Amino acid sequence: MRIGFIGFGEVAYTLSKKLLQNNVEVITSTKGRSKKTKQLAIDSGVKILPSYEELAKQSDILISATSPKTALAIAKKYGILCNGVFIDLNNISPENTKKIANFLSENNFNPNSSFVDGIIIGKISSTKSTIIVSGKSSDKIAILNNYGLNVKVISHDIGDASTIKMLRSIYTKGVTAIAYETFQAAEQIGLSNELFEAIAITESENFQFQTKSRLNSLASSKSRKFQEMDEVLDFLNSVYDEDKLEFNSCMSKATKNKFKSLKNSDF
Amino acid sequence: MRIGFIGFGEVAYTLSKKLLQNNVEVITSTKGRSKKTKQLAIDSGVKILPSYEELAKQSDILISATSPKTALAIAKKYGILCNGVFIDLNNISPENTKKIANFLSENNFNPNSSFVDGIIIGKISSTKSTIIVSGKSSDKIAILNNYGLNVKVISHDIGDASTIKMLRSIYTKGVTAIAYETFQAAEQIGLSNELFEAIAITESENFQFQTKSRLNSLASSKSRKFQEMDEVLDFLNSVYDEDKLEFNSCMSKATKNKFKSLKNSDF
Repeated sequence: MRIGFIGFGEVAYTLSKKLLQNNVEVITSTKGRSKKTKQLAIDSGVKILPSYEELAKQSDILISATSPKTALAIAKKYGILCNGVFIDLNNISPENTKKIANFLSENNFNPNSSFVDGIIIGKISSTKSTIIVSGKSSDKIAILNNYGLNVKVISHDIGDASTIKMLRSIYTKGVTAIAYETFQAAEQIGLSNELFEAIAITESENFQFQTKSRLNSLASSKSRKFQEMDEVLDFLNSVYDEDKLEFNSCMSKATKNKFKSLKNSDF
Repeated sequence: MRIGFIGFGEVAYTLSKKLLQNNVEVITSTKGRSKKTKQLAIDSGVKILPSYEELAKQSDILISATSPKTALAIAKKYGILCNGVFIDLNNISPENTKKIANFLSENNFNPNSSFVDGIIIGKISSTKSTIIVSGKSSDKIAILNNYGLNVKVISHDIGDASTIKMLRSIYTKGVTAIAYETFQAAEQIGLSNELFEAIAITESENFQFQTKSRLNSLASSKSRKFQEMDEVLDFLNSVYDEDKLEFNSCMSKATKNKFKSLKNSDF
């Protein structure tokens, strides 16, 4: 079995290491990529091919791990060339996932090839991190559980994995916004340490660590999170009729407003 | 040491049992109370006095555990008679806590007596439940840690304990509203079980149990929670200047709207 990575950032590096430790052949190409990426690929010990076309054709499983912005273009240019299973791991929206699936089926995607919708839950460096997959051939990705990865099949429908990512985003971003509002008031009053301890009594033992980590990462990601809330609202817009939308998305709208106000502040 | 309870519901019953097991003398009065309350007091084994006046005068620590609505009246009528430490455990707002403190100091409260601000975090029946106290004499309540109770002093300032309760309420009610919005969408799509599992990967192991318990209890408490959000918004109003209020309370306003929409629905 040969696994190919398009894009060689932290995700590909971390997964490659695990696969190589389990004696899986891993290939990539770094044509036109940054010096840093090239060095990362060399350090990992994967085989480096001269072109993405070759990479796509030679992979039994071709993993797209570039960025949400380039995911669709990568799928159109190289995913289409795949002779095995092509999986997108760019955490893209359900809508974009379906765009890829439609493009492939309308453009002579090899009938023996298949497309799988994949998302990563948790930091890739964490032992808890899990790749959740959906699509007809998602079971073929689940085989990687035997080779050091942590994969969970949730359904055979393209779009379900990316929908889970979107739904999870409603929850985690909303909780971050609530935590910000709560601890901003607590700090204003001078009771934030006492509040961390008081909430931890009924929340998880990990509450203080997790919440501080959420708030710290918000400071550097407020602009991105603000933009991602637009995707969340578009998604909710696609789920509900107009008459139900206002009440059924009020927390997400407030979350977007919270991130907007932070974006324009010194926080 | 003699501990007196005004009000004998679940809180007084649970705390009494622990105190009695630790050989503390516990007294109450059930004058004019329901048959159920009278029976609960008899079952507990506490000593029952004929009047609240006697109860107040004979208690070294007098605990008001009635309801937020009656807390102020109880303090004015009986708390004022206390010759030891009078503690309010009715989960009232910081504003009402300060009203009690002001009333007592302006109405010849025994100079040797003192008032303590107390809140209960967690279900009283849970082993984790903690009584958080603040006020000059809160250390005198902390002695009860030696007699089976779980008490934590957070400061010597009246209002700090009830402020912690209010701040905690911003967080927990907000998270409940976010969880409702998220899982309503997930159910609409038919992916709620998968979503519970996916979020649990990075949240606590207890996530599914705790969230389902939050959503179940919301169904029966949506009207009360809606009203409590008014208290939260009044509180935030007292913390911030008008120009900052909108952004600094947007999640809490949305939480109120979410509960309002549920109140008017079949949920």
